[in-house]
Amino acid sequence: MKKLENNLSAGIMALPSFPLVLVTVSHNIMTAGAFHFYSFKPPSVMVGIMPDKYTYELMNEHNEFGINIPRADQIELVRTCGSVSGRQIDKYQKAGVTPFEAVEINSTLIKECPVNIECEVVHKVDFIGTHQWFVGKIKAVHIDDVYARDQALMFWIGEYRKVGKFLEKA
Amino acid sequence: MKKLENNLSAGIMALPSFPLVLVTVSHNIMTAGAFHFYSFKPPSVMVGIMPDKYTYELMNEHNEFGINIPRADQIELVRTCGSVSGRQIDKYQKAGVTPFEAVEINSTLIKECPVNIECEVVHKVDFIGTHQWFVGKIKAVHIDDVYARDQALMFWIGEYRKVGKFLEKA
Repeated sequence: MKKLENNLSAGIMALPSFPLVLVTVSHNIMTAGAFHFYSFKPPSVMVGIMPDKYTYELMNEHNEFGINIPRADQIELVRTCGSVSGRQIDKYQKAGVTPFEAVEINSTLIKECPVNIECEVVHKVDFIGTHQWFVGKIKAVHIDDVYARDQALMFWIGEYRKVGKFLEKA
Repeated sequence: MKKLENNLSAGIMALPSFPLVLVTVSHNIMTAGAFHFYSFKPPSVMVGIMPDKYTYELMNEHNEFGINIPRADQIELVRTCGSVSGRQIDKYQKAGVTPFEAVEINSTLIKECPVNIECEVVHKVDFIGTHQWFVGKIKAVHIDDVYARDQALMFWIGEYRKVGKFLEKA
């Protein structure tokens, strides 16, 4: 039985799950559930960041960022990076992961994540809600040869999930 | 062993999976894999549409749209709506689903989908790649009382998937 919701946020709560990524800017790490591809050509992605975050300041200062895709068994890394602000601490040290230098941007990337995507900010979406969305053109991509989509970590409000079972080819 | 990819699109191919939705505008239906939440407040979502699609024309004409979340067992509906243009045919008829009138916008919604979200276009992102992203403020939400996130359908380039197994509370 379908019913009309009183609370419009129910439409957002109803969404199933999205990839969870770690955004690196300069030497900081932020956990982000607001992430999607943006365009196939030029290959680009987008990430939504709340303006009270340290990463928001860093994004506006550097205009470059890394997208690091964690595996489903790296929830602790994700939790650690999401629980404290990089204003106070070195998250690489706190989370026990290893920074390595990006090749096309001036930022660190996370060695232990199987995929690292280097991006240059090419647009900031100018309709502002709770998040500022940044569009990033992909400049370089590092992928571990044992990585497969199934290994990634999914998230949506309140829930960490695995990537779902393959059903059919499109 | 991590390696630097020659093809930057590898960064997009590496993404695990995203919710698959059906976008309704007026009396037409379009399958969309480019969909995310946009902001918690005002509650809003966004959808990316390629400019050669009939739905792109309709979006610009009506500035309103419905997001219909199909279940994982509705792949055939999704395939049908993704395989033909609404310029030629009535997709509701072709796919064998039932239109019902939205309450806050002038559009049809799909009765057989467990979640329907009515949106008003409040922004068109003006950095254009292969997709035009439309930001929609949520105006009304219909949810079937037996719907749960696990029932939705996920998709990313080449692959339909289920929603992944729950791992941990956030």
